[in-house]
Amino acid sequence: MSQAPRIGVLGAGGRMGRTLIQAVHDAGYQLAAAVERPESSLVGTDAGELAGIGSVGVKVVGDLSEVLKDCDVIIDFTAPVATEANLKLCSAAGVAMVIGTTGMNDEQKELLNESATKSPVVYAANYSVGVNVSIKLLELAAKVFGDTVDIEIIEAHHRHKVDAPSGTALMMGEAVADTLGRNLKEVAVYGREGHTGPRDRQTIGFETIRGGDIVGEHTVMFIGEGERVEITHKATNRMNFAAGAVRAAAWVVGKDAKKYDMKDVLGLNDI
Amino acid sequence: MSQAPRIGVLGAGGRMGRTLIQAVHDAGYQLAAAVERPESSLVGTDAGELAGIGSVGVKVVGDLSEVLKDCDVIIDFTAPVATEANLKLCSAAGVAMVIGTTGMNDEQKELLNESATKSPVVYAANYSVGVNVSIKLLELAAKVFGDTVDIEIIEAHHRHKVDAPSGTALMMGEAVADTLGRNLKEVAVYGREGHTGPRDRQTIGFETIRGGDIVGEHTVMFIGEGERVEITHKATNRMNFAAGAVRAAAWVVGKDAKKYDMKDVLGLNDI
Amino acid sequence: MSQAPRIGVLGAGGRMGRTLIQAVHDAGYQLAAAVERPESSLVGTDAGELAGIGSVGVKVVGDLSEVLKDCDVIIDFTAPVATEANLKLCSAAGVAMVIGTTGMNDEQKELLNESATKSPVVYAANYSVGVNVSIKLLELAAKVFGDTVDIEIIEAHHRHKVDAPSGTALMMGEAVADTLGRNLKEVAVYGREGHTGPRDRQTIGFETIRGGDIVGEHTVMFIGEGERVEITHKATNRMNFAAGAVRAAAWVVGKDAKKYDMKDVLGLNDI
Amino acid sequence: MSQAPRIGVLGAGGRMGRTLIQAVHDAGYQLAAAVERPESSLVGTDAGELAGIGSVGVKVVGDLSEVLKDCDVIIDFTAPVATEANLKLCSAAGVAMVIGTTGMNDEQKELLNESATKSPVVYAANYSVGVNVSIKLLELAAKVFGDTVDIEIIEAHHRHKVDAPSGTALMMGEAVADTLGRNLKEVAVYGREGHTGPRDRQTIGFETIRGGDIVGEHTVMFIGEGERVEITHKATNRMNFAAGAVRAAAWVVGKDAKKYDMKDVLGLNDI
Repeated sequence: MSQAPRIGVLGAGGRMGRTLIQAVHDAGYQLAAAVERPESSLVGTDAGELAGIGSVGVKVVGDLSEVLKDCDVIIDFTAPVATEANLKLCSAAGVAMVIGTTGMNDEQKELLNESATKSPVVYAANYSVGVNVSIKLLELAAKVFGDTVDIEIIEAHHRHKVDAPSGTALMMGEAVADTLGRNLKEVAVYGREGHTGPRDRQTIGFETIRGGDIVGEHTVMFIGEGERVEITHKATNRMNFAAGAVRAAAWVVGKDAKKYDMKDVLGLNDI
Repeated sequence: MSQAPRIGVLGAGGRMGRTLIQAVHDAGYQLAAAVERPESSLVGTDAGELAGIGSVGVKVVGDLSEVLKDCDVIIDFTAPVATEANLKLCSAAGVAMVIGTTGMNDEQKELLNESATKSPVVYAANYSVGVNVSIKLLELAAKVFGDTVDIEIIEAHHRHKVDAPSGTALMMGEAVADTLGRNLKEVAVYGREGHTGPRDRQTIGFETIRGGDIVGEHTVMFIGEGERVEITHKATNRMNFAAGAVRAAAWVVGKDAKKYDMKDVLGLNDI
Repeated sequence: MSQAPRIGVLGAGGRMGRTLIQAVHDAGYQLAAAVERPESSLVGTDAGELAGIGSVGVKVVGDLSEVLKDCDVIIDFTAPVATEANLKLCSAAGVAMVIGTTGMNDEQKELLNESATKSPVVYAANYSVGVNVSIKLLELAAKVFGDTVDIEIIEAHHRHKVDAPSGTALMMGEAVADTLGRNLKEVAVYGREGHTGPRDRQTIGFETIRGGDIVGEHTVMFIGEGERVEITHKATNRMNFAAGAVRAAAWVVGKDAKKYDMKDVLGLNDI
Repeated sequence: MSQAPRIGVLGAGGRMGRTLIQAVHDAGYQLAAAVERPESSLVGTDAGELAGIGSVGVKVVGDLSEVLKDCDVIIDFTAPVATEANLKLCSAAGVAMVIGTTGMNDEQKELLNESATKSPVVYAANYSVGVNVSIKLLELAAKVFGDTVDIEIIEAHHRHKVDAPSGTALMMGEAVADTLGRNLKEVAVYGREGHTGPRDRQTIGFETIRGGDIVGEHTVMFIGEGERVEITHKATNRMNFAAGAVRAAAWVVGKDAKKYDMKDVLGLNDI
């Protein structure tokens, strides 16, 4: 694929959709289409004005099938039922997809696997380039430090988050525990209060901060005597997910029909 | 008291004692005496060499009564039984004291109160200037932010610490809770795991990190929408306690016979 | 003013305008009007859908005079020429204003002063509650620490920012310098390279980080021996300015015709 | 080498020497000897009491040749002239060395190379395990992020440091620049003031903080849109260098006569 990819964005009126439109623009690619629910008052507006980047000459439409022929790849961060319909349209038309929709059930995931045999699909738990790099860094640090340090994982998210620790914090904990041959379920500590006794080196501590509208911050500390190494990832807005999704979109156009994740996109399996 | 105070340091061979000797030197005051247990192999060495600052011409002695006449004020960060004896000697001789000994029982505290009626005594839970300033800052921030923010307190200490959260973290929590009219016992949250539900604004979260030889770090976050204010205190070695104790020693010489704390020394009651 | 204020938002289609619409909603107040340039394709859309918070039943209009009668107070973060016209309309109608427009010339500022004699106007360099609180904290910390610490100011902003250090960093530096009786122009250090010699205590160091889309972070360090106190403000999105502006809007309704700033709104002059 | 190494410490009365004694003890190894200048008042004291860890039954002596036969390896963080004499003694006796002495001239470095052909010598610019790991992490992060991020290096050291940025900060900058094919001399920016214009992505910014007695902190930021990754190393006392030196000492006993550095000790060349 030598030409710039023509990218379509679904859910264009939502917050993630608008951020995706901006990310396509920031990456210097061509926005080929923008789709929103047909009943939205935003249908007919200019997609660029909607995203706050000025007019781009692409009107928001209410039906993907109208604009699919203009697209090489579709980015879909919507809802499971919508994604189901979109998968059918795209695989039939041979258009690649990048999917960030969460909460799909088993049947919908099966449909995704099947679609990926017809046209390529990127499907990742986390599109952040930084999170994916951080996991790799954590594995390397854990390998060299071994059992010579204490490991603590601190994360912060907004006040509306209902679970703790975050999925990303647990993913980081597992990366570290696996490298060190520990079972995270056995060694995780989720809070300290009262008489705790001295720290057991095998444990991995989690500290969970909740407040305001914090998007997502994760720090893993490797604490030795007289020093420590910290690996920190801070997400400050949706743009990091959007930029990763756009990077995936540009990468997946022209690839074989298959299901890929961000490690494929970033080439992290080869390092 | 117009002349530079003559300061004696007890427990001169211990880690805190050596740091106190250095702090006296760094502050430009005169080290008047250095005392260690009579059976220590360090008696007879030069106090400055012992502290790693080069010779100062003061030999470590094994008996406080030998050198008390050379001192205007004695700094005592030793052990309760030793401090008991020292209080008797100093109050009889009219010599001021700065006491950082921990773990004194009720009888020993009573003796301290009584001694303070004869010669002035500074006795503080925490000699760090920074911690005392931080408490004041926290009260001010809590007052202006009121209930518009989420408050979280993160602290980190070494792996050998057996209790959580630290006394300083709890003191900070109480300062904030008192300002906001909350009862810390009711609103404190010491860990988050599993399905927690959204955050309750009235709560105050504590996150406790343990690892390596971290001396003591405390951060209080006031987290709003789109912003946060953080007040952080980091202690990196004993010098901050020693410098505060030396500041107290210089301040207390010539004062009325009374018991004082660091708020008196720093004038924080008048701000 | 016993009823909830009816708030109008200007520049409703811009990024700040949308954030203001969300801030009005989050604060539980009533959005009374939303205005955008008449030629925008966004005129006629639902202001809530535009802001990404779902329909609120208020259509974006192209002319302020159409909706002024529905508003107790107008929030204006637009451009100087637009603000000029808005000031004339509002002062004639006796409607309060909160103005965050930057780059006004002397004539326009004079018009603002004059309008404020007819209806109340809040006009602040920085609407962030956190920044205003931080300045107060810095003054207090500088007062107690005096010349016993080294002071450094670190700030980070996005890659497009063309000046350094930020206006807020300089404002913080001035607050500290004024408290300590130093002249910032004489003591500021903006970079260190090569053989610098040991640090002069009277200096105040500025370290300026530029990268990505960082909204704005400021940390002031008070660094002593063995400890330091840090006061940090992090702005993570426009919401902190918007929330401050909405707080100002609710506060100014019913006040005397006069020009106010955020210190008035937050009552910081009385602490 | 199946038995625990017998380790001798030179400069036992200095701050680094005392820390080395503690590090040997903390690592569970046997302190075999402790040497100080013969004229020091500390000769004859118990090395453990001197280090503040309680009696260990090893007296400080004034002459290395007295105790060399008791040692498998000698750790030397003293001064060039002393190290010169120690190299001659150790290589003649076939005793391994770990050398942290700074400021050696060309002749002395040549002697070190020659000695290393007779008995093994570890000689590293920085014995911190964490710094060496961090360099490796930086190279990996730079490789994956490529030119998609802005890179900034922030470091902090004590007020007495006379050069800027630190050698470690420059070493980190070179590791990143080399990975990205940039010439650090051309792209380094050491301060920002006034009208700087927007940031050039190719540049690498250095921000240097000086204050108090900060031992050494380094953070490298990889700043993208909506996210950033930070790799931080914090040294809080000499123990991190001492622990690295002891790890090197245990590693080098029984190795071939050759000059090694910390990458060899940590096996970082094989990752």
